[in-house]
Amino acid sequence: MDYETPLFYRVMEYARAADRDVIDLVSGSPDWDPPEAFRDGLREYADTDQSAFDYGPSPGLHRLRQQIADHHGVSIERVVVTNGTGEANHLAMATGLERFPGNEVVLTDPVYPYYAGRTNLLDAESRFVPVDADDRLDPETLRAAVSATTSVIVVNTPNNPTGGVYDGSAMGKFVDIARTNDALLVSDEVYNRFDYSGRFSSALAADSTGSGPNVVVTSAFSKSMAITGARVGYGLFPTGDTENAGGSVEGAAGNPPDESFVDRVRSRHMLMNVTGSRPVQYAVSRAIEETPASYYERNRQRMADRIDRFCNALDALGAQYHRPDGAFYVLADLPGIGGSLEDAFGLIDEAGVAAMPGEAFGQARADHLRFSLLTPRYEAAVERIADALDRR
Amino acid sequence: MDYETPLFYRVMEYARAADRDVIDLVSGSPDWDPPEAFRDGLREYADTDQSAFDYGPSPGLHRLRQQIADHHGVSIERVVVTNGTGEANHLAMATGLERFPGNEVVLTDPVYPYYAGRTNLLDAESRFVPVDADDRLDPETLRAAVSATTSVIVVNTPNNPTGGVYDGSAMGKFVDIARTNDALLVSDEVYNRFDYSGRFSSALAADSTGSGPNVVVTSAFSKSMAITGARVGYGLFPTGDTENAGGSVEGAAGNPPDESFVDRVRSRHMLMNVTGSRPVQYAVSRAIEETPASYYERNRQRMADRIDRFCNALDALGAQYHRPDGAFYVLADLPGIGGSLEDAFGLIDEAGVAAMPGEAFGQARADHLRFSLLTPRYEAAVERIADALDRR
Repeated sequence: MDYETPLFYRVMEYARAADRDVIDLVSGSPDWDPPEAFRDGLREYADTDQSAFDYGPSPGLHRLRQQIADHHGVSIERVVVTNGTGEANHLAMATGLERFPGNEVVLTDPVYPYYAGRTNLLDAESRFVPVDADDRLDPETLRAAVSATTSVIVVNTPNNPTGGVYDGSAMGKFVDIARTNDALLVSDEVYNRFDYSGRFSSALAADSTGSGPNVVVTSAFSKSMAITGARVGYGLFPTGDTENAGGSVEGAAGNPPDESFVDRVRSRHMLMNVTGSRPVQYAVSRAIEETPASYYERNRQRMADRIDRFCNALDALGAQYHRPDGAFYVLADLPGIGGSLEDAFGLIDEAGVAAMPGEAFGQARADHLRFSLLTPRYEAAVERIADALDRR
Repeated sequence: MDYETPLFYRVMEYARAADRDVIDLVSGSPDWDPPEAFRDGLREYADTDQSAFDYGPSPGLHRLRQQIADHHGVSIERVVVTNGTGEANHLAMATGLERFPGNEVVLTDPVYPYYAGRTNLLDAESRFVPVDADDRLDPETLRAAVSATTSVIVVNTPNNPTGGVYDGSAMGKFVDIARTNDALLVSDEVYNRFDYSGRFSSALAADSTGSGPNVVVTSAFSKSMAITGARVGYGLFPTGDTENAGGSVEGAAGNPPDESFVDRVRSRHMLMNVTGSRPVQYAVSRAIEETPASYYERNRQRMADRIDRFCNALDALGAQYHRPDGAFYVLADLPGIGGSLEDAFGLIDEAGVAAMPGEAFGQARADHLRFSLLTPRYEAAVERIADALDRR
């Protein structure tokens, strides 16, 4: 599986080239408006003094970092603002591989493809742990797969593509597995505003030590503020001395052993990107300040409703799936339709519906398709699929 | 030399903590206004439809890429829009090390510290080639230093910190040296709008083959549009098959050998950052369209004047230096003042002037200080230094 050229683009290209109207159930970008305060922040920035256009601080605007720290109840030193969750995950995985013994990254199957591609890019070994029959990662299955060669474990909750949400008990076990194996747990929680189960628990909360030498949490404002193109994300990284954080501190790049994990992340961020874009950080900071809770709740409810309706329609089709507890996606096995790229192309041709092939996410659900519900046309999409199946 | 924690920040922190007014001759951020069209672009973006806030294309907005391609006279396929020149240089160096044989990066001494830090981060060997007595890199000195173990050569023209500008003949030799040694030449040309000699020649122009399998040019709008905080840069990367581009195509990450250099860069960019920030790309695109040539010429002339006046004042001080042909900086050896971090701290304490220690840039000019002229107070700074020397 070539995870380095995500299939998203190939499916979207095929859909664009199709000689018919195609409903996009591929995109991961919310179809609702960003907070008005985000727009206001951009407008305000456009009118500010010249000096506002200078480099911002490399780890992010101080006010934004403080807001993130306050939201999560951690010290500001742990916060590095990144170019979306993507950069935060990259920094976490790269620094984890450098700082913790072993050269293996443990991922779930199905997996968000960027994690797997990034593992290849970082010249590490991937070990895939299949989810259970209920599409959820069983902590004991994970525990059995993790070994002394494991350097980094990546989990994603709420999960793309399965919709799984891990409760405090499961997250506590994930943290424990990382700690007892001298590994780093990277918990990507970018969908944390989209939990429909009420069970979501951050890896931070599950980390009983508080100081979190084995835990990185990543997230972004991309989904919660419907601004995937702005690229404002962050990671919460371990501070403290490296005695607590794995043995391989004499990293390949010769970093001094007294450099903390977060310091090393800051150096890497600086050498990769120097710093993130400042106008959008400013606008996000203003949006955090001014956006009412009702904005987030309205969009959470919107997605919960869409998932309910879509799942009900899938039931009528006779599809096999597990109802998502979070995020934006339904991973389903439709009768008579497989989960290959060719099957996805076929669905575009036959039904005018673009979905992601399950094989893009690994082996375990290679006969499924992933339907993203970020369009009001998701119900029309199911009707089109039903019609196409009837015509067969 | 620990290039991974740039001394910029330590000097600026010391200056901020000083118990007196300090003139900042450290910052690399222009002190003039961005083009009005850049501000207009942000305002316009704030008012656009919801879909404008979705992910942009990973290699950058198409219109912006086309503008960059047109400006340089290359095909759009070569253009990847990056998070500033910093990311472009990172992508170029990382992919160069993967694609060209050897594990050595050849850099000049003095060097822009990020190049050296990035070489460490990428687990490659640095070889430093000292500049000549005139502060310029002699192509024949470079040729003698490059060997079969050289994978990447990085040059910067106009140069930070020396102010050197390479003419077409020198650049042609740099390209030839890269080609004959099966290495990649990375030419960072971010100061290309600030050439006071009229001799600047891009490595693209110097590449007689046109297709450029051994040449990457990087740049950004950070300096030319006075928007260092926006983070909009780009690289122009080789296309074509890998037969032309070095032997080590079976990279560690297992990339297919039929992937072109620019395709590999796009994958790496995607796995590191997914894509860059879209609002600022949009605003830059509008600013390219609408900004008159007089904007760039006015700022070029402003810096040429500052450099003249500053150099005349240095002459009165008896300083040793070479008059910059480009960029924003004067690298000078002041009588009685060294080039260590302690010397820079001393200058803050004694004179209320912050400058970069020469040792931050390597060994060859470790007794110099680098003065950045991005403030109208540069003349007052020289007066303060003269007074401090008189008081000794």
